[in-house]
Amino acid sequence: MSLFDEIVQPTLLLDEAAARANIARAAGKAKRLGLRFRPHFKTHQSAEMGEWFRPEGVKAITASSLEMAEYFAAAGWKDITIAFPANVRQIPQMDALAERVSLGLLAESVETVEALEKGLQHGADLWIKVDVGGHRTGVDWTQVEQAAAVARAARAGRHLRLRGLLTHAGHTYAERGGAAVRQVYDESVARILSVRQALAGLGLGDLEISVGDTPSVSLVEDLGPVNEIRPGNFVLYDAMQLAQIEACRAQDVAAAVACPVVALHPQRSEAVIYGGAIHLSKDTFQYGEARAFGLVCLPEGERWGAPLAGAYVRGLSQEHGILRMDAEDLSRLRVGDVVCILPAHSCLTVQVMRRYRTLDGRWVDTLNH
Amino acid sequence: MSLFDEIVQPTLLLDEAAARANIARAAGKAKRLGLRFRPHFKTHQSAEMGEWFRPEGVKAITASSLEMAEYFAAAGWKDITIAFPANVRQIPQMDALAERVSLGLLAESVETVEALEKGLQHGADLWIKVDVGGHRTGVDWTQVEQAAAVARAARAGRHLRLRGLLTHAGHTYAERGGAAVRQVYDESVARILSVRQALAGLGLGDLEISVGDTPSVSLVEDLGPVNEIRPGNFVLYDAMQLAQIEACRAQDVAAAVACPVVALHPQRSEAVIYGGAIHLSKDTFQYGEARAFGLVCLPEGERWGAPLAGAYVRGLSQEHGILRMDAEDLSRLRVGDVVCILPAHSCLTVQVMRRYRTLDGRWVDTLNH
Repeated sequence: MSLFDEIVQPTLLLDEAAARANIARAAGKAKRLGLRFRPHFKTHQSAEMGEWFRPEGVKAITASSLEMAEYFAAAGWKDITIAFPANVRQIPQMDALAERVSLGLLAESVETVEALEKGLQHGADLWIKVDVGGHRTGVDWTQVEQAAAVARAARAGRHLRLRGLLTHAGHTYAERGGAAVRQVYDESVARILSVRQALAGLGLGDLEISVGDTPSVSLVEDLGPVNEIRPGNFVLYDAMQLAQIEACRAQDVAAAVACPVVALHPQRSEAVIYGGAIHLSKDTFQYGEARAFGLVCLPEGERWGAPLAGAYVRGLSQEHGILRMDAEDLSRLRVGDVVCILPAHSCLTVQVMRRYRTLDGRWVDTLNH
Repeated sequence: MSLFDEIVQPTLLLDEAAARANIARAAGKAKRLGLRFRPHFKTHQSAEMGEWFRPEGVKAITASSLEMAEYFAAAGWKDITIAFPANVRQIPQMDALAERVSLGLLAESVETVEALEKGLQHGADLWIKVDVGGHRTGVDWTQVEQAAAVARAARAGRHLRLRGLLTHAGHTYAERGGAAVRQVYDESVARILSVRQALAGLGLGDLEISVGDTPSVSLVEDLGPVNEIRPGNFVLYDAMQLAQIEACRAQDVAAAVACPVVALHPQRSEAVIYGGAIHLSKDTFQYGEARAFGLVCLPEGERWGAPLAGAYVRGLSQEHGILRMDAEDLSRLRVGDVVCILPAHSCLTVQVMRRYRTLDGRWVDTLNH
């Protein structure tokens, strides 16, 4: 019996071989460039998949929340950066974790540093979050005085060890292809280096630089004079990386949601699947002129095939997905068939699906299952 | 100690009194109009909250998946419609459920009806899903022949009892205010009634009509000659219902996500909260000129206050929420404060958060927790 014969409801499929190849490729690049590889585990969210990084020599990881850091600490990871502005309401929990692992925290304000210093009993590394243009959060790279104030507050404390400057150049996600991504990456690195240089001029030297986003790590050959990289999405990739950013090849996408077809609408070239926002998440990417929620593939043997040209998920409600596809592809579908959707954003899909099924039928749990 | 003092991470708050008042109001309207009230439980997803409907005389419910129907059957509900095109890969599970409860199923194709007839051993009600203009799924209301074919296939079978025509006029969600929603609702009912009339003319008589969406049930006084209504969202409402559709008042919104503030960016009138796509979901609504992911309220005593004028969630990543707010409101916020976000779409927020905390500090579980 084929894996697809067993699919009765939306199921997150995991191509273990593709994920392991993605890990080996990124780890190999870091090694070649002499950078510390601190992969972000917020994408796969799985203790079992975390083990796949160890053969590549990975010892340091990134998490996006205290809860996730605790989960991976329980799985044996000893060096964890929580790449999110430290939430001062969780300092007791951070302190308990800092007793067990080498913990990295982020701050961008003196208030946060002071609250950490007051509340922590154990040592932790501190990274200053710098905004290099993504405008999500962090000290703006032009506000050197603010960065210096945070750095001085950290150096003045007893528990925090000021480690360096950290950024996430998330605006690479708005670019397409290697040249455009490289331009944003190079500009981002130049900006964070300028902050480091200015701080050194103020007597605040010896700061490391931590960067990391999947488009840059996938597409930029020379990652420049940085100390560590923290990509996350690369382990699975997704439709956004494939079709919008062009950061990977179709065979690199290691996760897809298998969904039953429940209705056909040839008069408007659409099919309806059992697979909605609660299975894929509601993120979108740019697909030609359309905002799309996923790409459409058909089962091929024991994997999914290449995305059907021009086919995409045009709408999602709670449980329904609406596929737009060309008449010929649609004419081959039957109610009860299974299609495989490459999600717009695999991190969020993993979060809502909560566990994976490998192509050989094994279940792989995450933090949430 | 206040509830808000105990918040350390994103927490879905539930105002039980507001939810119970919403239930009483909708149930009272159905009673007044002589309609069967079959509330959709996909919004609250909670066995405990389901009990709050019983004092209103509710005996019939709607679910959006087989799994959800099984969960509520285990909680003692005996009359459940799965308002989703029947997934023919789950017929054995449907059949097991049909043995225990009065089960309603949806079909829109002869193939699905035939597959159900072949696979079911127990009786089930069948509703023909009709598309009255929302273009998600269903037999288009102009395609009477297709509806007739489905009806004939159902009448020819031994296990399915053809019950009626069912629609979800989801395009009311694109409207604002009572007059506009009523216009879409009236047009939708006229369309489904025209299908019923045409089928009666073909000898396919005695069909019930089932409709239901929260904007219509909230804003339309006379729901017309229909048999049952199936709204779901009204139990909690959300920012979309409040600010985009104007289907409720601020005090009717019964759920909010309490989130710690982690960073302030006065230079761009923004604050960053611990509360992202994995807490709110990534749905949006129209808020003036902006696409927003939520509205921003402050704690007031043991509840949240009214939404701050002009303040909204302008962006979400996995764990971060970016609040845009006016300078004066922002100047009162401190890192470590808690804000309460009215989510764009409460159904999806409940699905990602998985449990509620009531204003008196009790935890209320859902299907997923």
